[in-house]
Amino acid sequence: MKVQGKQMRTVWAEAPGGADGGGLTVRMIDQQLLPHEFKIADMATHRHTADAIRRMTIRGAPAIGAAGAYGLAQAFAEAPGGEQNAPYIDAAYELLRQTRPTAYDLFYNLDRVRAAAAGSPEQDRAARALAEADRLADESADRCRRIGLSGLPLFEAGMHVMTHCNAGWLATVDWGTALSPIYQAHRHGKAPVVLADETRPRLQGANLTAWELAQEGVECEIIADNASGLLMRRGEIQMVITGADRVAANGDAANKIGTYEKAVLAREHNIPFYVAAPFSTFDLNCPDGDSIPIEERDPDEVLYAQGKTDDGRIERVRLAPEGARARNPAFDVTPAALLAGLITEHGIIEPNAEAIARAFASEAAPAPTN
Amino acid sequence: MKVQGKQMRTVWAEAPGGADGGGLTVRMIDQQLLPHEFKIADMATHRHTADAIRRMTIRGAPAIGAAGAYGLAQAFAEAPGGEQNAPYIDAAYELLRQTRPTAYDLFYNLDRVRAAAAGSPEQDRAARALAEADRLADESADRCRRIGLSGLPLFEAGMHVMTHCNAGWLATVDWGTALSPIYQAHRHGKAPVVLADETRPRLQGANLTAWELAQEGVECEIIADNASGLLMRRGEIQMVITGADRVAANGDAANKIGTYEKAVLAREHNIPFYVAAPFSTFDLNCPDGDSIPIEERDPDEVLYAQGKTDDGRIERVRLAPEGARARNPAFDVTPAALLAGLITEHGIIEPNAEAIARAFASEAAPAPTN
Repeated sequence: MKVQGKQMRTVWAEAPGGADGGGLTVRMIDQQLLPHEFKIADMATHRHTADAIRRMTIRGAPAIGAAGAYGLAQAFAEAPGGEQNAPYIDAAYELLRQTRPTAYDLFYNLDRVRAAAAGSPEQDRAARALAEADRLADESADRCRRIGLSGLPLFEAGMHVMTHCNAGWLATVDWGTALSPIYQAHRHGKAPVVLADETRPRLQGANLTAWELAQEGVECEIIADNASGLLMRRGEIQMVITGADRVAANGDAANKIGTYEKAVLAREHNIPFYVAAPFSTFDLNCPDGDSIPIEERDPDEVLYAQGKTDDGRIERVRLAPEGARARNPAFDVTPAALLAGLITEHGIIEPNAEAIARAFASEAAPAPTN
Repeated sequence: MKVQGKQMRTVWAEAPGGADGGGLTVRMIDQQLLPHEFKIADMATHRHTADAIRRMTIRGAPAIGAAGAYGLAQAFAEAPGGEQNAPYIDAAYELLRQTRPTAYDLFYNLDRVRAAAAGSPEQDRAARALAEADRLADESADRCRRIGLSGLPLFEAGMHVMTHCNAGWLATVDWGTALSPIYQAHRHGKAPVVLADETRPRLQGANLTAWELAQEGVECEIIADNASGLLMRRGEIQMVITGADRVAANGDAANKIGTYEKAVLAREHNIPFYVAAPFSTFDLNCPDGDSIPIEERDPDEVLYAQGKTDDGRIERVRLAPEGARARNPAFDVTPAALLAGLITEHGIIEPNAEAIARAFASEAAPAPTN
């Protein structure tokens, strides 16, 4: 997708001295500053990359996955030789794995990178790890492009589509998941109108979805998270598409807090609600949504909001009274029964265990390894 | 209720030179600065009072009603004698009436003040208007106190109760509507815990509800508007109580945007959802929710948030990208079928036309006049 007209990915790696010649820098769009400032952040070591994932400089399950893969490739490039090599890689793997508990792509990608390097002589491992991370990023971008094509037939001209949070290209390597069908519909002249709810507490809808849609010229209206019920009741929303951080074997989908609310409301108004996610987000070892851990984040996210002041500074302001307490569950689970379908790179799958198992079997998808 | 330990109302009038001797100042807690700063704002004329209502220096249906009544009393105090008297009052009445379209108490109170002054000689009207405005404020405070007593039996010890927006004493003259039963439960040792959703776009939950509950020592946790579905599903919310801006003859209730969403979610989880409102908020001439006009407010409310910076300034920050558009419907309607009951000063009423008509008939409540 484009930023100010220029083609760009959310995350990539650059090896100034060659991958096995030492440093590997992971570069990413700093999503903490968007939409107010566009900046590329450089992570010099795997520890910096882990920190960037934890602090949400990069976020969105597929983008976290790509960043994690590059982070582990960094660790291979940094690792000392000999006896200390394996413990260094193991520690880096664990550090990266524990940055965020809910997104499944991260675990999948870390395993792929580790497995790719495993069989090789020590001096080749860094190059193999980087090659695998690049391959995962390319695969992810291509899967997302195909998710868009899978979802395209759902669009009628001028449709008003709601989305929650940001499952656009900023949340992936490229194209996005929930927004990929919207970009395809836009390019195919269907002129979709996106209702982006702002998605408190972190405002990914107002900050990121509105920004990236504008870069591509897609019409977008921001609404408060509270407004979707009224607009659905008035018939002003014809479809809802969100992303997912993890899809269980039975089709239950964990996603940004509030997704479940929107799904209940969509069913109340007979509006189809789709979750768009690549196969890498499916965790077939997880039987249902109850088994998905829900991350609780810092209450300050609820007590504050960040934005741009009239004189152009990016500033955090406190919304709540001094001394107030807050709770901040970051995800919820939408039961498969509320979904109209799962939009994947292999078509739209019915949200149930049998259909998902069938789809994975027929596509001979790489099996999750954890 | 108390502010820093001192008893206080949200709005009142002071007549430095006597009500008929010229000026009448309407004083109110400036709710635009809360919770960051506590300040009393003085409105010198009815035009200032109208402006304060429009800009939401004061808000909440019963508080708007009280402010409107005092504003019209100001107009009587200001009005020239003779032929220009009636047109002056009429213009003031219209100006005040058009400040906010959804709240019903305002219209009811303006009619009461005008009617109280109508039969009197010109020189007595200002005093009568002020006396009626004071009486309305006293009645409102007492009604709200009794709403609390009506709702008290709903509470079990330690119950977790969710509320939306602010229907506390700041939204009324005293006691509040939705929060009045919570204050009563607190005083009766039931130790309720309030989950206050922040209520974007204007954040009345995070700003006002959290603040006034803290002043009274009631335990409160702020949550993002998106978090209620998850918490209900987990069984962490046992009851929901909100206020209303207008209740139709059939029990449909207009209230802050998002109320409808919470009511749908509460029913999904078999959690009782109550609307608390005095009879003055009931519009028996309005057959159902579809007849209630829904105010659309400035999109900037969605595009910005106001809070306090780390160095103590109250500042507005832009959340959305430059050029982004937003929609800002300020209210929605919750159908009576989603309500467990209407908590009023005359007990808990079933949410249907027959029960409401019966309650009004038996209480010989003053009939709405518009």
